[in-house]
Amino acid sequence: MHRFGFEVKLEDGSGRARAGRFATPHGIVQTPAFMAVGTLASVKSLDPDDLRAMGAEMILANAYHLHLRPGDELVRALGGLHRFMAWDGPILTDSGGFQVFSLATLRSVDEDGVEFRSHLDGSRRRFTPESVMRIERNLGADVIMQFDHVIPGQSDEATARDASERSLRWLVRCRDEFERIGSEGVASGGPPPNNNVTARFVDSIIEAPPPSPFPPPQALFPIVQGGIHEHLRREAASTIRDLHDWLGFGIGGLSVGEAKPDMYRILDVLDDALPRTHPRYLMGVGFPEDLVEGVRRGVDLFDCVAPTRMGRNGTAFTSDGRLNIKRAEFKDDARPIEQDCDCAACKRFSRAYIRHLFLADEILGLRLLSLHNVHFLVSLMRRAREAILRGELASWSDAWLARYHSRPTISA
Amino acid sequence: MHRFGFEVKLEDGSGRARAGRFATPHGIVQTPAFMAVGTLASVKSLDPDDLRAMGAEMILANAYHLHLRPGDELVRALGGLHRFMAWDGPILTDSGGFQVFSLATLRSVDEDGVEFRSHLDGSRRRFTPESVMRIERNLGADVIMQFDHVIPGQSDEATARDASERSLRWLVRCRDEFERIGSEGVASGGPPPNNNVTARFVDSIIEAPPPSPFPPPQALFPIVQGGIHEHLRREAASTIRDLHDWLGFGIGGLSVGEAKPDMYRILDVLDDALPRTHPRYLMGVGFPEDLVEGVRRGVDLFDCVAPTRMGRNGTAFTSDGRLNIKRAEFKDDARPIEQDCDCAACKRFSRAYIRHLFLADEILGLRLLSLHNVHFLVSLMRRAREAILRGELASWSDAWLARYHSRPTISA
Repeated sequence: MHRFGFEVKLEDGSGRARAGRFATPHGIVQTPAFMAVGTLASVKSLDPDDLRAMGAEMILANAYHLHLRPGDELVRALGGLHRFMAWDGPILTDSGGFQVFSLATLRSVDEDGVEFRSHLDGSRRRFTPESVMRIERNLGADVIMQFDHVIPGQSDEATARDASERSLRWLVRCRDEFERIGSEGVASGGPPPNNNVTARFVDSIIEAPPPSPFPPPQALFPIVQGGIHEHLRREAASTIRDLHDWLGFGIGGLSVGEAKPDMYRILDVLDDALPRTHPRYLMGVGFPEDLVEGVRRGVDLFDCVAPTRMGRNGTAFTSDGRLNIKRAEFKDDARPIEQDCDCAACKRFSRAYIRHLFLADEILGLRLLSLHNVHFLVSLMRRAREAILRGELASWSDAWLARYHSRPTISA
Repeated sequence: MHRFGFEVKLEDGSGRARAGRFATPHGIVQTPAFMAVGTLASVKSLDPDDLRAMGAEMILANAYHLHLRPGDELVRALGGLHRFMAWDGPILTDSGGFQVFSLATLRSVDEDGVEFRSHLDGSRRRFTPESVMRIERNLGADVIMQFDHVIPGQSDEATARDASERSLRWLVRCRDEFERIGSEGVASGGPPPNNNVTARFVDSIIEAPPPSPFPPPQALFPIVQGGIHEHLRREAASTIRDLHDWLGFGIGGLSVGEAKPDMYRILDVLDDALPRTHPRYLMGVGFPEDLVEGVRRGVDLFDCVAPTRMGRNGTAFTSDGRLNIKRAEFKDDARPIEQDCDCAACKRFSRAYIRHLFLADEILGLRLLSLHNVHFLVSLMRRAREAILRGELASWSDAWLARYHSRPTISA
């Protein structure tokens, strides 16, 4: 039975941007695609029905946060993440590697793993490649990320090499634990997991594969680290490719403080260093311009908290740049956030109304802007895909970027 | 053309509880009905689509709050409340009379009106019967309430008489200003309002009347005050009936601190004192047991912030009493909030998941419990209506109340 697969439908004339279909046990993701982030098993302020209605196909959750609360064992006992959060489409879990970066003051790294002081109650929690595999197995996402060591984007070569090489050693341990879990099962109850998940690059992928028993087969993605140092990235990519017949590749350690040209340069390097037959997932990158630049460099999957976090702060993405809805100029503005946007906010509500909701601290305002922003990125990737299929990605993205950057004055 | 009307379809065997249809320019309301409260033009944490999906037919907004922000003139300029908040069904606005009670430390009452210190910025705002009519005209709700003087529920006879008689004098001024506005129009722009709104008690009401131009014809409802003093209530009802051919009657000054038996006793009195041909709206009353008791005493319309406020605090209504979702006992409870509930929360999510959302401060939790609670009341009134139409309201409500009161132990 087909479980995972990736089919590159068409590469752009440049041979880099691609339209693809990524098959998982919970359905197909048309790529390039933006994945909304539900760190704690909820895409903040949105309903799963909102995400389905806007055409979102795959979402994220976070192993570190869900281990702390409500606990991955509990999620497993309740039938796994899909059932817990009522999302029957594909899910990916990040491993906690990003929290090694974002919660740097609360953790210490050694070769065995990372000890966090919980940001909730100060309790000590040790994460190792092995424990993270068990956590992600309990959560039951379709794609699970290796445990890695993320460092600031401007780190020097020695620091980046140290973290990248540790991430590679941890990848071996993740792979071994993942295979061990696959043959042994994790906890009592439930059928033994099917670990026979090898890449299959098929010509036609069956739509809507039947739901699998819990825990479903999972795909473990490695993560390429190496900071902004091209040779480290190439070395990491090469080492990773030799370790296993992976189903896809994560690109980590970008959008963590480095300059944008550095990020784009590393993506150029990795476009050559990673197999063109497999999905590439650029982790934590979600500003509209970065998605477009990433697609141009052969990236298939993106995620970021930006659309929901900025939405809750009153900032909307538009084709003309960002817009801060709280500004006085929108007080009596009867237009939608964005003309011609077909999201559930723009189809019904004026800027004046949404501004009123924010000034009055009405929760609906947070939801409407989050919804608009996630829709904006999902829709942007859909349009990029269409442009690729037309063979016009270069001209389409040039025009899109020129317009987006043309009016910084409406920025927040 | 038909604009407003009320048709009593069937009275219960007791001759008190009634199933009716209340026609407004924005559609028909099947009664008895619960109206969700959107104080600031948003039913807190819910989307208008949520309300439509659960079968809510009429909602509330508040003239005092909307005058302060975003301003009733602005709402009018943006096409009125229906368009502003994307709710094309019937709307009722309360007048600010309740704020005379709830913001008692911020206001002073004299014969002319009430001076509030704004709860937002401390600025002084004078509300009079005349200014409130203009505010409610600008907002453009279908039903607008008179400006009245609400006092605490346990007030003595002299205090209650003073406030009730002032409310009656203010009603005369509201009526006169409402008629003056009707013939003159309020502000520039828009067609002159059609003030030819008289009660028509028709055998068949046309479904879904076409939307009216803004501002639409409006119905002004008087409010019966008089505290817990039966003779004051009877006097007020009699005086009000002599003042105009009203389209419906508000019952105010209940659920403001008096004992429940006092509220029920006053409803018994008013069932006799008000015409059975017209809709009766019991203001601010919205606990499930009070709705059932009100229906048994001939009330047609209810509203209250309780379902959304309690929902945001983690409390859910169930047929077995209230349930505090944050309690540890629900940690691993895979059941929905209420078995057999067909709301959008219960159909998809477990108690364990919603508890997790509350403990993790996820906004979706507020929405799901608010949605369940409003659905609970809307559905409760739908079931009461069906019981009335079957001629079984007495037995149905006895059984419902017995079950609801039988398990206080799961209370918050």
